[in-house]
Amino acid sequence: MTVKFGVLGAGRIGQVHARAIASVPGATLVAVADAVEAAAQALQDQYGCEIRTIDEIREADDVDAVIICTPTDTHADLIEAFVKAGKAVFCEKPVDLDVARARQVIETVAAENGTLMVGFQRRFDPDFRALKAAIDEGRIGEVEMVTLTSRDPGAPPPAYIQSSGGIFRDMTIHDFDVARWLLGEEVETVIAQASVLTDPEIGKLGDYDSVNVILRTASGKQCTITNSRRATYGYDQRIEVHGSAGSISAMNHREANIEIATGDGYTKPPLLNFFMSRYTAAYAAEIAAFVEALRTGAPMPTTGLDGLRALELADAALQSAKTGQAVSLSAR
Amino acid sequence: MTVKFGVLGAGRIGQVHARAIASVPGATLVAVADAVEAAAQALQDQYGCEIRTIDEIREADDVDAVIICTPTDTHADLIEAFVKAGKAVFCEKPVDLDVARARQVIETVAAENGTLMVGFQRRFDPDFRALKAAIDEGRIGEVEMVTLTSRDPGAPPPAYIQSSGGIFRDMTIHDFDVARWLLGEEVETVIAQASVLTDPEIGKLGDYDSVNVILRTASGKQCTITNSRRATYGYDQRIEVHGSAGSISAMNHREANIEIATGDGYTKPPLLNFFMSRYTAAYAAEIAAFVEALRTGAPMPTTGLDGLRALELADAALQSAKTGQAVSLSAR
Amino acid sequence: MTVKFGVLGAGRIGQVHARAIASVPGATLVAVADAVEAAAQALQDQYGCEIRTIDEIREADDVDAVIICTPTDTHADLIEAFVKAGKAVFCEKPVDLDVARARQVIETVAAENGTLMVGFQRRFDPDFRALKAAIDEGRIGEVEMVTLTSRDPGAPPPAYIQSSGGIFRDMTIHDFDVARWLLGEEVETVIAQASVLTDPEIGKLGDYDSVNVILRTASGKQCTITNSRRATYGYDQRIEVHGSAGSISAMNHREANIEIATGDGYTKPPLLNFFMSRYTAAYAAEIAAFVEALRTGAPMPTTGLDGLRALELADAALQSAKTGQAVSLSAR
Amino acid sequence: MTVKFGVLGAGRIGQVHARAIASVPGATLVAVADAVEAAAQALQDQYGCEIRTIDEIREADDVDAVIICTPTDTHADLIEAFVKAGKAVFCEKPVDLDVARARQVIETVAAENGTLMVGFQRRFDPDFRALKAAIDEGRIGEVEMVTLTSRDPGAPPPAYIQSSGGIFRDMTIHDFDVARWLLGEEVETVIAQASVLTDPEIGKLGDYDSVNVILRTASGKQCTITNSRRATYGYDQRIEVHGSAGSISAMNHREANIEIATGDGYTKPPLLNFFMSRYTAAYAAEIAAFVEALRTGAPMPTTGLDGLRALELADAALQSAKTGQAVSLSAR
Repeated sequence: MTVKFGVLGAGRIGQVHARAIASVPGATLVAVADAVEAAAQALQDQYGCEIRTIDEIREADDVDAVIICTPTDTHADLIEAFVKAGKAVFCEKPVDLDVARARQVIETVAAENGTLMVGFQRRFDPDFRALKAAIDEGRIGEVEMVTLTSRDPGAPPPAYIQSSGGIFRDMTIHDFDVARWLLGEEVETVIAQASVLTDPEIGKLGDYDSVNVILRTASGKQCTITNSRRATYGYDQRIEVHGSAGSISAMNHREANIEIATGDGYTKPPLLNFFMSRYTAAYAAEIAAFVEALRTGAPMPTTGLDGLRALELADAALQSAKTGQAVSLSAR
Repeated sequence: MTVKFGVLGAGRIGQVHARAIASVPGATLVAVADAVEAAAQALQDQYGCEIRTIDEIREADDVDAVIICTPTDTHADLIEAFVKAGKAVFCEKPVDLDVARARQVIETVAAENGTLMVGFQRRFDPDFRALKAAIDEGRIGEVEMVTLTSRDPGAPPPAYIQSSGGIFRDMTIHDFDVARWLLGEEVETVIAQASVLTDPEIGKLGDYDSVNVILRTASGKQCTITNSRRATYGYDQRIEVHGSAGSISAMNHREANIEIATGDGYTKPPLLNFFMSRYTAAYAAEIAAFVEALRTGAPMPTTGLDGLRALELADAALQSAKTGQAVSLSAR
Repeated sequence: MTVKFGVLGAGRIGQVHARAIASVPGATLVAVADAVEAAAQALQDQYGCEIRTIDEIREADDVDAVIICTPTDTHADLIEAFVKAGKAVFCEKPVDLDVARARQVIETVAAENGTLMVGFQRRFDPDFRALKAAIDEGRIGEVEMVTLTSRDPGAPPPAYIQSSGGIFRDMTIHDFDVARWLLGEEVETVIAQASVLTDPEIGKLGDYDSVNVILRTASGKQCTITNSRRATYGYDQRIEVHGSAGSISAMNHREANIEIATGDGYTKPPLLNFFMSRYTAAYAAEIAAFVEALRTGAPMPTTGLDGLRALELADAALQSAKTGQAVSLSAR
Repeated sequence: MTVKFGVLGAGRIGQVHARAIASVPGATLVAVADAVEAAAQALQDQYGCEIRTIDEIREADDVDAVIICTPTDTHADLIEAFVKAGKAVFCEKPVDLDVARARQVIETVAAENGTLMVGFQRRFDPDFRALKAAIDEGRIGEVEMVTLTSRDPGAPPPAYIQSSGGIFRDMTIHDFDVARWLLGEEVETVIAQASVLTDPEIGKLGDYDSVNVILRTASGKQCTITNSRRATYGYDQRIEVHGSAGSISAMNHREANIEIATGDGYTKPPLLNFFMSRYTAAYAAEIAAFVEALRTGAPMPTTGLDGLRALELADAALQSAKTGQAVSLSAR
């Protein structure tokens, strides 16, 4: 059985997913929809798929599944519409910036007995999977403390920041998901600090660029998250998990695996500078996992609930940063 | 001019400082005092110094300076007594576990126009100094976020934990001092989380073994501190400072600088397993700095006030861990 | 203009090149030939190309270029036949195990004004290209000494060893090519040592499994090559170039970019264990470079002459290993 | 029992050994001799030893052992004189630049039943000892190939080069000794290449600055040695040993264990720039081993024969570099 795909939105991330579909055996790209003609055309040229409207894709008999790559504020409606139309849905995080709306969508999916995978590509990164596998094999004993470092090379443009929901909902949200995945327990308490250090404009928009968060589970496991919107040396993405029997780390990816020694010292190249080049393999593996789950009938590896939980943590962190108080998740 | 030293307390740390004195040009060890005869005798055998009582050392004309290596609860009284006797005093942290008493001591030292250096050896570690020098040279721009990771190979015995003042005052205190040193600004707000994960006995004693702290200065700079009382791979001591123009890290020290490759992978030896072997050079440099300041009349590189500030941060962190609220330093 | 390809030989390396063609814009796979029906069928299934005989491909109007992935002893005849038929030819090294025959082929290609690229994929590896680019930018000054370490995870089967021409012509030949590329001068003198250390069967076949070679150019630049047929930790592929102003190295590729710390030390995973996974990107870049040269009319990046020179160095090394004497290339 | 030492020669290396004696329990420095008054005076000031003539030390009852740190051309005579006087002798390599004379000295020592340790400090470096211990524990199986990389930051002054016996006898000799130590078998065949690449003046003096050597034992084990008189990034000293079950490496020592990340990449400091700072611990351990052997009556860990064998390898390498022929050690 081949899974026939429609892609909604042919922008940057839509292209990434189209390429992923082409690389996955048992998946084929049938149709693409985008308000921008040229964007849709580019996908057609490259993969031979048809250009259709979103409605046409929703009603098409030759489309089994869609990947939603449209702007965030369209996600909730599209998920509901396509699930109701009987399509399997893969949607980039978040389901919605509003927790209540996200909850509603999840309920709709459940009521329709629909299929929804929410994209958290980091869980599919080969290094992070190797790290998780080693933990699951017991190589570091019981997980005690997780340390996540995520720094972007630079802040997105002001327009994006305004519609993004802020750093916790847009950037830290990936770390919240990774934290849940690695802690193996739900988070009970969140405390956070947030500053504007890289660009006062970000502060004027009501957002932050430098944040630290401590998460804590019921059994006392903890996770710290460090985020910055500025890293001159590239896209900084590190995980360290400390356990009762040892620690495990996943390291950064460089532009090239070389080193130059001179009188100034030993220099390795900066990190890959862009999340799409850093996570190329993760994006492909994510779609492969979606296809695999569709073909085998296994549960989706990341669900709407995962999206919701991460969003709740983002809201809690924001509240803690503003009030200086620990926020309890269960009490919310 | 040679600085003539007395050492009070000939235990583990007293021996370290005696060796440091022997290695510093312009310093000589004249006398040692210890209630345990054998301990004092060992120093006499090795360095040819005299065994005296604490009172004799305080009144001795041939002693310029003392190093206080006695139990914590004697520090405050000894500092006051020796400063009043006109001796320069080097005292291991802390001045006292009680902030009010520590403040009193500092006032006494000031009133007597005395000389007091409080030992925070990490500031004198060659790697950490190189890191600080690079920051001061502007190589990473403005400091924005500091990340300190300190993990002990194992917890001290219960008796020690009871008298130590708890993990924040005993272990994290070193990180608080390093944080102040590297942030270059006083800390304004502290939030912390604390768990018992390695040994329930520690919890029964009312202490914690796994803590995370976020510090924040008035300008919004932040520092995270991660501590654990258990690290199977040795004595874990890392610093990372993130700035506007780059980041800088100081890495761990291993037992040997070798690597073995087999079918199981590439393995480097564990870390040095003990703070005294890890910080051998730092302890020597610390005493050399004390001697240098005495000889040149320069200000002491680390003072009673540094000890007090670190202690205040420890108290604030403990309060935050207990209340779940950010603790403001200025408001205390 | 799209370059239309035929692939001769649909075995392991033929599949690699077919995948590369599919990934290169401006290239398309039209036809495949293989005596083994199933092998050809697999490529047809995956890429939709036609199955034809070698003769049909040679005479086809819709094929511009071929990739020769057939056994070594067919390379020379096929190159000549396809060049005479006006096809551009990409052939895996070697042109022929016999230097005289290889020379003849090169002369034929020249006489026919034909197009021949001989595959030395390492020159197209992204890390090695970054290393070469840094050298060309002058970052290590003048190249003085090159150190090449190549170790295979294990020896090929006896049947392969017998037809391979021996370790120097089969394995070291890649290092000879890299050495010429990085030294930037032709080699004048070769000395070598060769042993049988991993498996006596290899010695019975008249071959070696452990060799060291020193190359020297007219100006005195040197290159050492270390090869072994056994490396328990994976496929070991390192380059170090020492120059007047510094050194540059290209490091190995691991299975995952993680590290586990326990009481036994800090362990990173073994290396990628297979030349095809290690050089995946290089194989794709090599075909992209061939297509680029065909489309722009630029000279082929690696030619029959490169293949010949590497083979001459292999013969010289074998002679030196057997006689214990330096072998002069110019004198041969 | 305390071993009472005389030091002959109070120059750079004499100071190193005096400091080592001071740090070794059970050893004491009694006397120093040096034609340069100020040099001897400096040692007296620092360690409280007496200044005497060489003859006085030789005849002194209160001196058990001497360390010969005088110029190379005095070593042979001094060793013989002091051994005949019943003193235990530690002599820096080489015994003599002439193999015949060195052999004679060894025979004299044997005839006198004397005690001679020849200094090859690398064998006592803590990292190299850890590497050797891992090999002896069988962690890499049978040793197959050793790779030694030694590069000096810069060439010594012309005057030194002239009296040094040339690069093989002065610099590579340390690698020859390490090779013998790690191969665990005597070398049978030597081939070498030598160039002048860093400074034509070195060539005018009849010496080389860039050499590569391949050693081979009877069982076919091999060792490559790479030397250069120029390394902009510091004093480069690496060992890699490849065995049947794995490989083991000893890495370089840096000025500080830090790393700076900026837009230019990740930079670690250059290497320690001087053999004395790199091998501080090795020099101390070497004297400790001498004292230990004297106190326990155990055999000397490195002997005159070790010095002789390394010298023979140096001569063989020079001959091979000049003739282009493999030189057989057994045939000499």
